[in-house]
Amino acid sequence: MDRLSLNNNDKKVRDWLANEAKALGCSVTVDQMGNMFIVRKGQAAKETNFAPVMMGSHLDTQPTGGRYDGILGVMAGLEVLRTLHEANFETKGPVGLVNWTNEEGARFPLVTVASSVWAGLTPLDTAWDCTEITAPAPDSDGPQTMKQELQRIGYLGDMEASYKAIPIAAHFELHIEQGPILEREGRKIGVVTGSQACHWFEIEVRGRDSHAGTTPMEARMDALLASAKMITAANAIAKAEQGLVTTGRFRALPGSVNTIAHTVQFTLDIRHVRDDVVASMVEQCRIKFAAIAKEDAELGVKVQWTTLAENTAVHFDKDCIQAIESAVDETCKREVPGAWKHMTSGATHDSCNVSRRCPTAMIFTPTKDGLSHTPVEYCKPEDCILGAQVLLGAVLRYDAARKDLV
Amino acid sequence: MDRLSLNNNDKKVRDWLANEAKALGCSVTVDQMGNMFIVRKGQAAKETNFAPVMMGSHLDTQPTGGRYDGILGVMAGLEVLRTLHEANFETKGPVGLVNWTNEEGARFPLVTVASSVWAGLTPLDTAWDCTEITAPAPDSDGPQTMKQELQRIGYLGDMEASYKAIPIAAHFELHIEQGPILEREGRKIGVVTGSQACHWFEIEVRGRDSHAGTTPMEARMDALLASAKMITAANAIAKAEQGLVTTGRFRALPGSVNTIAHTVQFTLDIRHVRDDVVASMVEQCRIKFAAIAKEDAELGVKVQWTTLAENTAVHFDKDCIQAIESAVDETCKREVPGAWKHMTSGATHDSCNVSRRCPTAMIFTPTKDGLSHTPVEYCKPEDCILGAQVLLGAVLRYDAARKDLV
Repeated sequence: MDRLSLNNNDKKVRDWLANEAKALGCSVTVDQMGNMFIVRKGQAAKETNFAPVMMGSHLDTQPTGGRYDGILGVMAGLEVLRTLHEANFETKGPVGLVNWTNEEGARFPLVTVASSVWAGLTPLDTAWDCTEITAPAPDSDGPQTMKQELQRIGYLGDMEASYKAIPIAAHFELHIEQGPILEREGRKIGVVTGSQACHWFEIEVRGRDSHAGTTPMEARMDALLASAKMITAANAIAKAEQGLVTTGRFRALPGSVNTIAHTVQFTLDIRHVRDDVVASMVEQCRIKFAAIAKEDAELGVKVQWTTLAENTAVHFDKDCIQAIESAVDETCKREVPGAWKHMTSGATHDSCNVSRRCPTAMIFTPTKDGLSHTPVEYCKPEDCILGAQVLLGAVLRYDAARKDLV
Repeated sequence: MDRLSLNNNDKKVRDWLANEAKALGCSVTVDQMGNMFIVRKGQAAKETNFAPVMMGSHLDTQPTGGRYDGILGVMAGLEVLRTLHEANFETKGPVGLVNWTNEEGARFPLVTVASSVWAGLTPLDTAWDCTEITAPAPDSDGPQTMKQELQRIGYLGDMEASYKAIPIAAHFELHIEQGPILEREGRKIGVVTGSQACHWFEIEVRGRDSHAGTTPMEARMDALLASAKMITAANAIAKAEQGLVTTGRFRALPGSVNTIAHTVQFTLDIRHVRDDVVASMVEQCRIKFAAIAKEDAELGVKVQWTTLAENTAVHFDKDCIQAIESAVDETCKREVPGAWKHMTSGATHDSCNVSRRCPTAMIFTPTKDGLSHTPVEYCKPEDCILGAQVLLGAVLRYDAARKDLV
């Protein structure tokens, strides 16, 4: 799947979704960020505009994306609405579906930006002015902004993109896990209780370039060796804390076979479920890196940390989580015990933004080999069905328990 | 100093050197590689063309080079000839000076190529066809070959560049150490007994790219982490064997902060005085890298080795070394004991090629902070003088002991 946000394919699937929703008697509201709010009325909503219980995810993909990331959540939400419609089932309050714009950040490099604007976390203009970083369409006159593309495909809505203008009573997101845990443990459903804290750093290590043949090991200030030791040490810290540390970018200068590197820049992506543990891992890395810069006679390198991003942990809503637990218990009652488990999301999702403004929780389905953002991304049909079933059950339970519909 | 081989500045200094040599009554022969052979006749050579005892080094530099690397050896050699001339001293056999072309390999990327052609180790055409990799001169029509540039500056000689056509009786090279050992130990002279073995490899580590947030540590195939561990391990092996291991180039793909690297390529420069120890270090690295690729649950990476270069150790000539030892003993007799030491060259020099065809040895002088290939490269005037004095003494001793001049 190659459906970059707001391109012609995105317009096509949006138009299709809107038509499907209208065919089910739902209203479709588009806000200034192109977020599509599809709502099916409930009993209580006949007279008044109560906030709906929403299912939400996204239809945009990475340039070489799969067919499940985001898409599963929207399709399952539509199937829930279709099921309610066909069963002529009347929920207490309104129930609906959101298609959040540009979740991937692949075309416009702001991940989950439209839900962030809705949640009041990112200013509208910042999002609107964001310019595409992927190749512009052949018929366009150069790179376009989000606002230009929203306008071009007819999805620049009038409604303010805001939780105040478009309130949501609760938000449920079904998503593939994008990791190997459920598959490896033979489980069917992850009840997602929150999202990891995630800090990004760029580390610059400065040593001294010198001749690889004439400089004894103990007379070196080898920025690359120091960096290798730091990455190895950070990995050990991650393991001890049961967190995650990743170095994905690494640049060594001057980059000659027989010259000791004078400068290395590498990134650290540090994650853990708990903010205090991330803080502790960062602190341990700082201490360890400083020690590595001194421990060996050959090292006297300088280490400089630059923070690239700091996202605190997200904790989903207890009632939403309970609604999912109850639904999955019923759905899986024929399954062996342990068919589901509590999980923390490793990746960022629109639900992380949405959860700042309304009760939220997520449901994960197994992902073959844990692979996502690739054409081989796969979730078995029976697992997709199970996920959709749990989504339906959670929404109905949450709706039935609503006390705000008076 | 920025005197790239065969550029206009190189022509200038060559012309100057030839004039200085002729003013001392020396002959100047230029071969097909632009190597300049300056010869002062000895007693025995009045009738016959005996091979001369040569002093040799190079006048080309790195683009941001210093004023000593190579230059010291040529200037000291000229000073020796001048001293002999002014003292009206008659050596037994002829004594001379070689300026080897393109030692640095900075402009034409073949290090010590002209002495290699002379020694019959590199074909003439390979050298001639070598194209410059530094920026071509503004008035040139694109990158030039060595042959074109030899012709342009008037140093494409007629004489075959060969140890057969231009035999050398013995070769002495005075050079800055380019390392910190003499300075750190407070010594004045290094008597160089040979050159390290040096093997170059490119290591490719292939893992699997996956999401930094959703992939548990134990489910990763992190090519970058594996590489960091390998570099750290190779360093430990080098220390244990008192050899040298350097990684100067490192490339990680795809190079995204929150994506685990699927591929890393890095270089290994492995050196030791002894060929068998280099072989052992390589073997230890192979075993250790293979173990790292398996040792942790998260690693199942593939490791591939490509050999880039394999230079065996060079052992200089016993008689040449003795001539230097004797000269340095006399020169330093006013110095404290320990004013000199035996050393092995970490870097490659023209003498390594020359030593394959005639008795050879080298003399090192201290280098401030061990720094070379940089404008701050420095050797104290008194250390330069001492080096030149030892060079003179070694040449005279070797000449006096010659038994081939009948």
